[in-house]
Amino acid sequence: MSVPGLSINFATVRQGGSFGAIVDACLRHGITAISPWREHVEVAGLAEAARIISENGLRVSGHCRGGFFPALDEAGRRAAFESNRRAVDEAAALGAACLVIVVGGLPAGSRDLPGARAMVADGMAELLPYARAAGVPLAIEPLHPCYAADRACINMLGQALDLADTLGEGVGVAIDVYHVWWDPDLAAQIARAGRNGQILAHHICDWLVPTKDILNDRGMMGDGVIDLKAFRQMIEAAGFHGPQEVEIFSHDWGARPIDEVLATCVERFEALC
Amino acid sequence: MSVPGLSINFATVRQGGSFGAIVDACLRHGITAISPWREHVEVAGLAEAARIISENGLRVSGHCRGGFFPALDEAGRRAAFESNRRAVDEAAALGAACLVIVVGGLPAGSRDLPGARAMVADGMAELLPYARAAGVPLAIEPLHPCYAADRACINMLGQALDLADTLGEGVGVAIDVYHVWWDPDLAAQIARAGRNGQILAHHICDWLVPTKDILNDRGMMGDGVIDLKAFRQMIEAAGFHGPQEVEIFSHDWGARPIDEVLATCVERFEALC
Repeated sequence: MSVPGLSINFATVRQGGSFGAIVDACLRHGITAISPWREHVEVAGLAEAARIISENGLRVSGHCRGGFFPALDEAGRRAAFESNRRAVDEAAALGAACLVIVVGGLPAGSRDLPGARAMVADGMAELLPYARAAGVPLAIEPLHPCYAADRACINMLGQALDLADTLGEGVGVAIDVYHVWWDPDLAAQIARAGRNGQILAHHICDWLVPTKDILNDRGMMGDGVIDLKAFRQMIEAAGFHGPQEVEIFSHDWGARPIDEVLATCVERFEALC
Repeated sequence: MSVPGLSINFATVRQGGSFGAIVDACLRHGITAISPWREHVEVAGLAEAARIISENGLRVSGHCRGGFFPALDEAGRRAAFESNRRAVDEAAALGAACLVIVVGGLPAGSRDLPGARAMVADGMAELLPYARAAGVPLAIEPLHPCYAADRACINMLGQALDLADTLGEGVGVAIDVYHVWWDPDLAAQIARAGRNGQILAHHICDWLVPTKDILNDRGMMGDGVIDLKAFRQMIEAAGFHGPQEVEIFSHDWGARPIDEVLATCVERFEALC
């Protein structure tokens, strides 16, 4: 039993314990693609994480995450740059298809959103040569506008693609249904991303009605209002055939046993995605 | 003491009781522009509400609200149409500058966002002749994307203006900082709205970090991250000089005495907006 085309982002199964334990659980359910977070890799050790990936023939659909460029001062920007270089190194060592970039929001106390966006462009430009040299594509993930202040001031697919176009080779986008499903220009922007080979990752979950928590109430596929099949059709028509990566930040699912969560992911993925 | 340029949306002071009681409270604080909701007018009676407005020389910056066009069946669409006609009548009787339109989201059980948007366009087109005949401008209010599913599937200023352009005379937009502050194309779209005389209302509040509740945790001006002065400069440069209308849905402010809320609105408005 295997489920080609399905990847599990470790944020979906944070209750699952260590890097190795989460991988074992994925394998029990036939899942052979993963997307770890840096904290899992750090605890396991980079070499050990890479060994587990290699020995099990796992595909790494993305490494989470780099970014958070805006900072109040030069020391903050240096710290972000150094952290992002390490994230690139990790992504390379893990053989990740991309390093997911959550660009960051307003620096503390700032109300200057255009300024923060300029800092993101500068930070990406500074990181890019290093990422190119390491062979790690950078996937800008536009985040839902409800995160504009504190997580990512890149909030639309078109905006992310504009930045990717400016930066050039080695930069694309991670398209998460949760963040962009509402975008009135979605179809055109997915097609545009496809034409330029800029789709590096496709994340899935669902938008619940009501959404009770702005951070941790994302839905399991099928429990919300996103037309996931139609979304995937646009993605594949644009030429991306990589895994669909389940990323669900949820107090609800986080409280359930990992095998229940993964079994549900597989079932919903096969029926609905 | 009067505070020209400041309007109070009754959603900000729902704890204040009746239509007349809220008006009295506003007058105590020198506030002579208001934006009532339909339920306040219904309880007071339309004639009595109009009398209070007239006798006190109040300006009505908007009537809240019409819209909610998408429906599963013809009966639902008819009900929405009839309700919206009554809302137009009320706006006319109150001398409101506009009827604010919150267009509605997905019909229950639907995942067809483009379909819902088409229903909105159809519903607006059907209502418009009646509103024109009554002399009531319709102000489409683009709502933050976090409300796309359940309140309004028009989520960007540019999208609202595209619809307004299609519909023609008698349709404009209500621009609420909360809903659009994050829009990467904000400046250009405000300027575009101004060129075409489509800015009918300007609502203010603030975006809190963190936002604890998606519906009822809007901030008082100055408590969040929106650059309100810069926003207002764009609005005025675009030719709109009407009142800034404070609309704060908030469990926090709703639990405070109305005089505290209004005094704070006046103080923050004069200092920050």
